Amino acid sequence: MSKRLSYTHKELQNLSLKELEDLAFNLREKIIEVVSKNGGHLSSNLGAVELSIAMHVVFDHSKDPFIFDVSHQSYAHKLLSGRENIFHTLRQFKGLSGYTKPNEGDYFIAGHSSTSISLAIGACKAIKLKNEDRLPVVLIGDGALSAGMAYEALNELGDRKYPCVIILNDNEMSISKPIGAISKYLSQAMATQFYQKFKKRVEKMLDFLPDGATYMAKRFEESFKLITPGLLFEELGLEYIGPINGHNLNEIIAALKQAKLIKKPCVIHAQTIKGKGYSLAEGRHAKWHGVSAFNIKNGESLKKQDKKSATEIFSQNLLELANKYENIVGVTAAMPSGTGLDKLIEKYPQRFWDVAIAEQHAVTSMAAMAKEGFKPFIAIYSTFLQRAYDQVIHDCAILNLNVIFAMDRAGIVGEDGETHQGVFDINFLLPLPNLTLVAPRDEAMMVKIMEYAYHHKGPIAFRYPRGSFILDNEFKACEIKLAKAQWLIESESEVAFLGYGQGVGKAWSVLKNIQINKKSANLVDLIFIKPLDEEFLKELAKKTKIWFVFSESNKIGGVGSLLNTFIQENNLNIKLISFEYKDKFIEHGKLFEIEKELGLDTDSLTNYVLNYI
Amino acid sequence: MSKRLSYTHKELQNLSLKELEDLAFNLREKIIEVVSKNGGHLSSNLGAVELSIAMHVVFDHSKDPFIFDVSHQSYAHKLLSGRENIFHTLRQFKGLSGYTKPNEGDYFIAGHSSTSISLAIGACKAIKLKNEDRLPVVLIGDGALSAGMAYEALNELGDRKYPCVIILNDNEMSISKPIGAISKYLSQAMATQFYQKFKKRVEKMLDFLPDGATYMAKRFEESFKLITPGLLFEELGLEYIGPINGHNLNEIIAALKQAKLIKKPCVIHAQTIKGKGYSLAEGRHAKWHGVSAFNIKNGESLKKQDKKSATEIFSQNLLELANKYENIVGVTAAMPSGTGLDKLIEKYPQRFWDVAIAEQHAVTSMAAMAKEGFKPFIAIYSTFLQRAYDQVIHDCAILNLNVIFAMDRAGIVGEDGETHQGVFDINFLLPLPNLTLVAPRDEAMMVKIMEYAYHHKGPIAFRYPRGSFILDNEFKACEIKLAKAQWLIESESEVAFLGYGQGVGKAWSVLKNIQINKKSANLVDLIFIKPLDEEFLKELAKKTKIWFVFSESNKIGGVGSLLNTFIQENNLNIKLISFEYKDKFIEHGKLFEIEKELGLDTDSLTNYVLNYI
Repeated sequence: MSKRLSYTHKELQNLSLKELEDLAFNLREKIIEVVSKNGGHLSSNLGAVELSIAMHVVFDHSKDPFIFDVSHQSYAHKLLSGRENIFHTLRQFKGLSGYTKPNEGDYFIAGHSSTSISLAIGACKAIKLKNEDRLPVVLIGDGALSAGMAYEALNELGDRKYPCVIILNDNEMSISKPIGAISKYLSQAMATQFYQKFKKRVEKMLDFLPDGATYMAKRFEESFKLITPGLLFEELGLEYIGPINGHNLNEIIAALKQAKLIKKPCVIHAQTIKGKGYSLAEGRHAKWHGVSAFNIKNGESLKKQDKKSATEIFSQNLLELANKYENIVGVTAAMPSGTGLDKLIEKYPQRFWDVAIAEQHAVTSMAAMAKEGFKPFIAIYSTFLQRAYDQVIHDCAILNLNVIFAMDRAGIVGEDGETHQGVFDINFLLPLPNLTLVAPRDEAMMVKIMEYAYHHKGPIAFRYPRGSFILDNEFKACEIKLAKAQWLIESESEVAFLGYGQGVGKAWSVLKNIQINKKSANLVDLIFIKPLDEEFLKELAKKTKIWFVFSESNKIGGVGSLLNTFIQENNLNIKLISFEYKDKFIEHGKLFEIEKELGLDTDSLTNYVLNYI
Repeated sequence: MSKRLSYTHKELQNLSLKELEDLAFNLREKIIEVVSKNGGHLSSNLGAVELSIAMHVVFDHSKDPFIFDVSHQSYAHKLLSGRENIFHTLRQFKGLSGYTKPNEGDYFIAGHSSTSISLAIGACKAIKLKNEDRLPVVLIGDGALSAGMAYEALNELGDRKYPCVIILNDNEMSISKPIGAISKYLSQAMATQFYQKFKKRVEKMLDFLPDGATYMAKRFEESFKLITPGLLFEELGLEYIGPINGHNLNEIIAALKQAKLIKKPCVIHAQTIKGKGYSLAEGRHAKWHGVSAFNIKNGESLKKQDKKSATEIFSQNLLELANKYENIVGVTAAMPSGTGLDKLIEKYPQRFWDVAIAEQHAVTSMAAMAKEGFKPFIAIYSTFLQRAYDQVIHDCAILNLNVIFAMDRAGIVGEDGETHQGVFDINFLLPLPNLTLVAPRDEAMMVKIMEYAYHHKGPIAFRYPRGSFILDNEFKACEIKLAKAQWLIESESEVAFLGYGQGVGKAWSVLKNIQINKKSANLVDLIFIKPLDEEFLKELAKKTKIWFVFSESNKIGGVGSLLNTFIQENNLNIKLISFEYKDKFIEHGKLFEIEKELGLDTDSLTNYVLNYI
């Protein structure tokens, strides 16, 4: 059989069912091959192969907006739409993105969940104004329906009824297990066969009713439509087709053709199996959602786990704290394994919750728990905290509540690219009154900072990187006191390296390099950036003249900028150079490749410092 | 009859229905009296009087969490719960807040919409862990149900089924007219009488069916429950009571008592009339939602409209631009009159939309329109843009799309207090790559900046104050060029005043004062803060030594901080003093009172500058 994977819309239409099924097989093979080498999203992509083929058969990607929610299921689409020959560069530096991206020919970018229906509505409004013959097609997972944003869009769509097709890819899994009423609701789907039979019987019975009952009978029939799983969507004013088998190409193509004809917003409810076609992944949820390189035969990870990740440190230590302090509670928004909260949920299901993809709700519900005297830990990726920014301000900071934000994946996250880099949290949290910002440089400090955060009054956020800390407890951990920095290396030099969080490790790497060149510098761990250790910094300013700042944050409004204002306000005579990220979104690749390109790898920084001093 | 308004839970329980009805009358009288003097939310509060009384009759505010969504309907509750004697200080500086506030004895703060159900869930989790006998009671309007956050919470509540009572105050109005499928859905309520009768008939009919049909009959009955307006909630796993008349105390009290007993999450659907009891306000939506002082007899505003508001300038000018450029479109999230977008929606209903309280969806749907070649203006209050922060980053900035953010109510907004101050937008937008930030100082510049924004490539945000500009076009408007500042007053002085937006007007006020004292200064309108006019600032630095910065933003990560970094990076010898807001939430009051307390009124600033130079 042909191994070709990229086809035009026209070509696809001429393939037989058998040929399309072979294509599905080949797409899966390619996806497994490349993901086993490059890492990436495996099970979500394997589950959406037939749906993607059918989309390309029935709709024309060259004109119809194809909108993939989160787009962690867009690999088959990438292959089908001409990227076959560069697919091996998936998630590699300067290679194909792991998500949809307009510069690759996709309609839109997506990495965060639940934006797709809003995008479709925007496209619908544009199409209507331009009077064009195009139809937006959305592919969205059941997990993404838990986020409020999807519902805001459905609320407008059900009202204005723009024609568009929403394929609900229901694998009853989300990333890990499904949470929430909607999810339970959808899973009733298969229970509806009883109703379907019952409906027929009752209809028959109504035939024997006397005259005048016709209208009633119609109403009656309508009332029965309600008890299909489509009810919720129909109630919101959307057409509903399903549930269908999302791996049966005939069924999907027929449903899509029907949806295309009706000129109304239509939800197609397709049931799929995440990981379909790779037996080791089928039915095994969280483990195979996002993976690093693995051995295809036995499924074992090829990643050498050299040292404990910051997430593991967080997870283990939070468990210990939760054993010790009964009033610790916690939440994750659909990232139990990613944040390490899974262990806590398992041990203390009454105190730790996964609330589905619902960052806003996660933060505000925990604010109320803080009001009630509990100490909530909100375990969240830096980039996803952006979703709950207003809730941090409005529900936590104004009332100065004891809410603890554990921000994972802070700094560059690597292969997931610009939608996932955790580079803004420092910048958007610093301006918020009442908030305290702190960061550990290594495991020992993480443990101490988490204990401190538990006792702290008011909202506090600490951040830690994806992967491991650079430092291995080279410096003795100090007691954590509010706004107290630590002098790690004292030197006669007029140069000081000021690090924050993982930045301390980077500063230390550079310092070791310049020591080789017989130069020296002071090394400071700021520990807190809000509030700053003002006394300490004034002392430091008496002994030094040049400050190099190391922090994994954007430069504008970041740590350097904060210190520049401190310098101004205190009339200090300090030259400050900040090694933070420039004002540019950071694309995907391995951390060292990205840092090199940005001039922020240890060697570049060493050269910069040596040239300067 | 007694005119007393504050009662304990116990006392209220002993009042007769007649006495409660009198109380409702008196509460309305007091609310109308005080709001006619102090301004505030009128119609939402008048509509919720009976609901609030019933809450206090059935539940005990001293232990049960009373959670008011947005809390713009909490006046009756404030009066009932002991604040009768200080109610005349409503919305006054240092007086009662117009919203709920814990330091007044309320459970939580609220000013932004749709946080209440999340708060209730947090409270439920806490109550369960503490094993206490308390029940959270939520009062939420139908408008607030359009925001995704409410749905995120319902999704968890329907799954975990914590006991709590949600009173849905359905006035079919929201702030202006209702938008969205949910709203239409609820308004079907009255159409259900037919179904109720029909249901009875069919049930009767089923009695005659042969054996074995009992199970079917039960199922059948369940299926009929579905066709009440509670369907949507029941589908989400919540109990539903209603619809009831939200002005009938007997009905409401009975429903609340029922809900209290069932130990499950329960929605009580109460239909009310916004403005109930003040005939001029009944049924007149937007006009009477939030009002300034007015004459009770004829309803006329007592506010002297001295000059055009920035909102009016925006609205008029956007209409002219929309006439000129066909590809301008726009959106508001439930603030058509507040943002002035109402005029555009009226004239161009195919190009301008109110998408309900759905800031996230508003931004992302417009991002898709930008992708399609349109030029969307997103008219939004600075404080509500916080709700769409992730969408600004993820859906607009990364792809560098031509989305225009018109940020109204930037700076201190006055009587609405800390939940509404527009003081963070500069700080949270500055760190975002691709975004351009600009602000007009007066009407003439607003017109030019809006024309510029239309032609600008990439996302751009401009901000303007609540009320009027300080300046009346005293300085000739310049052509707007990207990152070009304007020198308004050149002087031999080594002092420069640098203003941004309304800050230019403030700088000019201070400058006039110091001129009286025979001092002078340069006056600069930065116009853009991103990108900065670097050449201009370097020139300025050659001629001056002291820079005073005037901007209505938080100091940390604000305009002063941005310029401090510019000074550092360019080795400029400048002393910079920034007059921005300190790191503290700003409470409610009149603008001049707040500014005086913060030392940011013209006199304080003049004294500061005169002492310094």
